[in-house]
Amino acid sequence: MLTLFVSLQVRPDQIDRFLVAIEANAAASLRDEPGCVRFDVHRVADDPCRFLLYEIYRDEKAFYQDHRATPHYAAWREVAAECIEEGGHVNTFAVPVFPQTLPEMQEARS
Amino acid sequence: MLTLFVSLQVRPDQIDRFLVAIEANAAASLRDEPGCVRFDVHRVADDPCRFLLYEIYRDEKAFYQDHRATPHYAAWREVAAECIEEGGHVNTFAVPVFPQTLPEMQEARS
Repeated sequence: MLTLFVSLQVRPDQIDRFLVAIEANAAASLRDEPGCVRFDVHRVADDPCRFLLYEIYRDEKAFYQDHRATPHYAAWREVAAECIEEGGHVNTFAVPVFPQTLPEMQEARS
Repeated sequence: MLTLFVSLQVRPDQIDRFLVAIEANAAASLRDEPGCVRFDVHRVADDPCRFLLYEIYRDEKAFYQDHRATPHYAAWREVAAECIEEGGHVNTFAVPVFPQTLPEMQEARS
C-alpha cells in the first residue's frame, strides 16, 4: 500500500474553483480506479486557504501509473496549476504501519 | 467531525518502544471510544523516524474530552514524552470538506 499526504495552499481568490476541481478528482478516483481506496479532502481549521488530502492506493503502480494516467487527474492538474500558491503543494509519501487494521484492507480480503 | 493530522519525529533509539505504544493507543481508541472513527498510523517513506497519524472524531467533545480522558491516552502520553524528539510533535486540526463521502459517516447513518 502507498499513502499520500498532500498539503495545498490555495490562492484566496481561487477557493471556489479549487473546491469544484478537487471534489471531481476525489470522486472520480474512488469511482474509476480500483487501486485508489481512499481520497479524503480536509480544510485546515486555522487556515481556510490550506487543504490536506489523504489518499491511499493499493500499490505504487495504482498511483504512479494508473492514477496519473486518468483524465480526471489531468483535469485536476490543469486547475491546480492556476489555483495553488507557488511552492504551496507538498507531497509526503508514507506506508501504513499496521495495514491489517485499515478497513480498506479488510474489504480487499473479503 | 474533527480530523487530526499528527506529525511525530521519533528518536531513532526509541522506534520499537514508540511502535508498541502507538499501536496500543490506536487500537484502544477505535475499540473503546464510540467517537473515534479512524486512527491510522503511517511511516514516512523517506524518513523512517517520522510518523504521521490520521485521526477522525465525530465531534470536538469526542477528542478534547472523551479521547483525552482515557487511560490509553495517558499511557501513550507518558511514552511519547520520552520517545518524541523535542519540537518533533506537530498537530494540525482540520475538518472534512465533503463529509458525506466518508465511509465512517455512512456507517453512522445506517
